[in-house]
Amino acid sequence: MIVVHGASASPFVRKVLVALAVKDLPFEQIQQIPFARDLVYRKINPLEKIPTLQDGELTICDSTVICEYLEDAYPQSSLYPKNAVDKARARWYEELGGTRVAELAAGIFFQRFMRPMVLKQETDEELVKKIVNKQLPPMLDYLECQVPTEGFIFGDFMIADISLMSPFVNASYAGYEIDSARWPVFSDFVGRVKSHPVVNKVLEAEAVLMGRR
Amino acid sequence: MIVVHGASASPFVRKVLVALAVKDLPFEQIQQIPFARDLVYRKINPLEKIPTLQDGELTICDSTVICEYLEDAYPQSSLYPKNAVDKARARWYEELGGTRVAELAAGIFFQRFMRPMVLKQETDEELVKKIVNKQLPPMLDYLECQVPTEGFIFGDFMIADISLMSPFVNASYAGYEIDSARWPVFSDFVGRVKSHPVVNKVLEAEAVLMGRR
Repeated sequence: MIVVHGASASPFVRKVLVALAVKDLPFEQIQQIPFARDLVYRKINPLEKIPTLQDGELTICDSTVICEYLEDAYPQSSLYPKNAVDKARARWYEELGGTRVAELAAGIFFQRFMRPMVLKQETDEELVKKIVNKQLPPMLDYLECQVPTEGFIFGDFMIADISLMSPFVNASYAGYEIDSARWPVFSDFVGRVKSHPVVNKVLEAEAVLMGRR
Repeated sequence: MIVVHGASASPFVRKVLVALAVKDLPFEQIQQIPFARDLVYRKINPLEKIPTLQDGELTICDSTVICEYLEDAYPQSSLYPKNAVDKARARWYEELGGTRVAELAAGIFFQRFMRPMVLKQETDEELVKKIVNKQLPPMLDYLECQVPTEGFIFGDFMIADISLMSPFVNASYAGYEIDSARWPVFSDFVGRVKSHPVVNKVLEAEAVLMGRR
């Protein structure tokens, strides 16, 4: 049985949950929090990040490493394109979604959701403004030119689509929505990915956990 | 013709240079510096990091995405194991080498090499002590149990070996060497990877660029 360690509201765990759903793989999930100084968890993930995946004797960390493994080990319903050039482009989008895009979205999420709702601290509104007005726009300008006006990036729904959408779920918990007048193509794309039946089901389950349903 | 954008002394560029050498692929290199506010470079890499690889019409960023592409497009002399479980383990080591291990080594390199030698600033010795005495040891304890006492991680010399070694080249520019009494297995392993003929040639060329030969 596959075991996923990681809280559902993480953009990285969400990516893995969608990948498992696309491949229709049964699994058990442990709602592990990252950086919790949990000595048992540290043994399986020295970085104390989430997610970690266990499959039989194998223990691997990092959502990208996990999704690549799922693709290799369970090739049904491909998550990555087959040809080398498209696969490279898909990996680059996955990397971008998991680094800069995730960092910016996490900044908004932390300030406007975690601090007031969980940590009972004040939001640093200056920092949020900097992210929303200065740091995100060049990235959204770039993404606006990368995604299609219809359908998904490589035709079929794949990891690149999930990766670029996932951070914006966290941003939306914090009240941020992409300005559809300024970035109509990317805004529509994110909406289309969220509405994909597999993603929608994962998001519905997450909403229940987050107390939103 | 393949073009690599990135300065040779980057642990990530070095990884790609070794990968290209393993596969015996001809390429042109531009000694691009990261975060240089270079508007031309920003168009091909929105993160302004290095390396970026161009191969015909394809432009991709991130050393892992690049090495995966080289493996897919030029399958001679494999950089990754073939079976799914070992490939996943290899990717995890590559991820670890490129994240936490690289960050810690970069901290030493920045404080003890870049600040005094390039930026004409003082080294923050407290920060270096924290990295060397507190942050690196648990990582080295982990790595000590992951690498073999002889040969390379997956038998043949591969990306996992390069990835775990590369950050320590930068640390060594800053005078840091792994304590071989405390971590004999990992220390030997790093030495063995550096001595591999392909790596040695890349390191020799780098030493010339760094004014060390």
